[in-house]
Amino acid sequence: MTQTVPSPTVPAAFVSLAHQLADAAGAVIRQYFRTPVAIDDKADESPVTIADRQAEQVMRDLVQANFPDHGIIGEEHGSLNGEAEWVWVFDPIDGTKAFITGKPSFGTLICLLHRGTPVLGVLDQPITRERWIGVDGQGTTLNGAPLRVRACDAVEKAALYSTDPSMFKGDAWPAYQRLAETVKLRRFGSDCYAYGLLAAGFVDLVCEADLKLYDFAALIPIIREAGGLVTDWQGQAPGIGSDGRILAAGDARCHAQALARLQDAG
Amino acid sequence: MTQTVPSPTVPAAFVSLAHQLADAAGAVIRQYFRTPVAIDDKADESPVTIADRQAEQVMRDLVQANFPDHGIIGEEHGSLNGEAEWVWVFDPIDGTKAFITGKPSFGTLICLLHRGTPVLGVLDQPITRERWIGVDGQGTTLNGAPLRVRACDAVEKAALYSTDPSMFKGDAWPAYQRLAETVKLRRFGSDCYAYGLLAAGFVDLVCEADLKLYDFAALIPIIREAGGLVTDWQGQAPGIGSDGRILAAGDARCHAQALARLQDAG
Repeated sequence: MTQTVPSPTVPAAFVSLAHQLADAAGAVIRQYFRTPVAIDDKADESPVTIADRQAEQVMRDLVQANFPDHGIIGEEHGSLNGEAEWVWVFDPIDGTKAFITGKPSFGTLICLLHRGTPVLGVLDQPITRERWIGVDGQGTTLNGAPLRVRACDAVEKAALYSTDPSMFKGDAWPAYQRLAETVKLRRFGSDCYAYGLLAAGFVDLVCEADLKLYDFAALIPIIREAGGLVTDWQGQAPGIGSDGRILAAGDARCHAQALARLQDAG
Repeated sequence: MTQTVPSPTVPAAFVSLAHQLADAAGAVIRQYFRTPVAIDDKADESPVTIADRQAEQVMRDLVQANFPDHGIIGEEHGSLNGEAEWVWVFDPIDGTKAFITGKPSFGTLICLLHRGTPVLGVLDQPITRERWIGVDGQGTTLNGAPLRVRACDAVEKAALYSTDPSMFKGDAWPAYQRLAETVKLRRFGSDCYAYGLLAAGFVDLVCEADLKLYDFAALIPIIREAGGLVTDWQGQAPGIGSDGRILAAGDARCHAQALARLQDAG
């Protein structure tokens, strides 16, 4: 997924479709939010509801109706034409545990890959009606207003978010703890929303593990185009084969110091 | 704080004032939300901002202008006439760490005590514009719509929220862990918002520690009037002298089982 040649400009029609996808998913999700939906446990014991499945399906249908040659990778309904030049990656509800408990920190994540490189990302919170979109070379906006990350020159000054301690398995837990002990403010329970707050300049670091492509791909253009960076815990661009360990930062200095804390074998 | 004689009906003028207080605090908080406010560290190292201080001040001023004989206990500006028959308890921003990172899970908490017993509680989220109010004998509403807790007959089926693992100090941590291992779904990062979700029937348990009167008093009428219960970890009504360990539940069966897990010396 390393970008070796410049991506072409993302066509306006694809940006327009990204908004339509978020609109459609949001309409489904609002219909089910804070209603007693049935909750199924998936093979990995994570919960899924009809809202997840329907929200992904309406997005898949829209892609196929508009750009039938595009590929699709979805959390709930799998991959289709994943070798296409342009591939859409969907997590219809990132934060299903928040969704089923009525807490609007979940989001719909939409990423457009060009030959494997994320070139467009959407984070849509359909209850608070907040939509972040980052497009390659075009910046990041929140409900249309341009965003920038904030400066943070030292990890000791940083506000750090992660979704839950349970995501840090094995050696990820002591690595996370080394980082968490260093920062100024450390919180859990953020789901994807924390990456939006980072892009908006109110959070400095998001450190997570056990993520899948559809959990993080959309967040890469959103943060990069707002002036920040997203890598794995080795400092590399996280791609399809990623180990799911992600470090996002608004300031490269804070990122480098946080990476050193994660890698410290002490 | 144990209720030995029935409280009088809460006068409509006091309910009306409670709404005015929440309106006034919300107007202050919205003005500062997601702006780069200065953050001071209090003696207990918790953060405080001008938004906390101003939001409490406008509420204090309203009480004094309307009912000068009422007492006030506030997180930021202390106690005034605390021995009065009617005392207002304010936490202008419960969840300041969420507030300063732009995450709308914080809330304004307003409680009215009658001779030490909480008889009215407000949880106001000024960004999502959600207001819970519970009044003795009059039920609980969310933005005017009546709420009920949901049934949960076994702790193994419960969704449990807590604000942060760091609140469980000393023997509170293993106690919390015994409970957390038992439930179906366990999440952090909720601040006071989780109690609102419990009253609304989407969460079954909130277990917390290290709380002050102004952190929990408002939540008691909200949950009780929605059909649930709030006790300390000994199953007693939490009062002014509480040790700050709180267990809220929607269903008394789930509450009893959760209490047994917390108390297990194993």
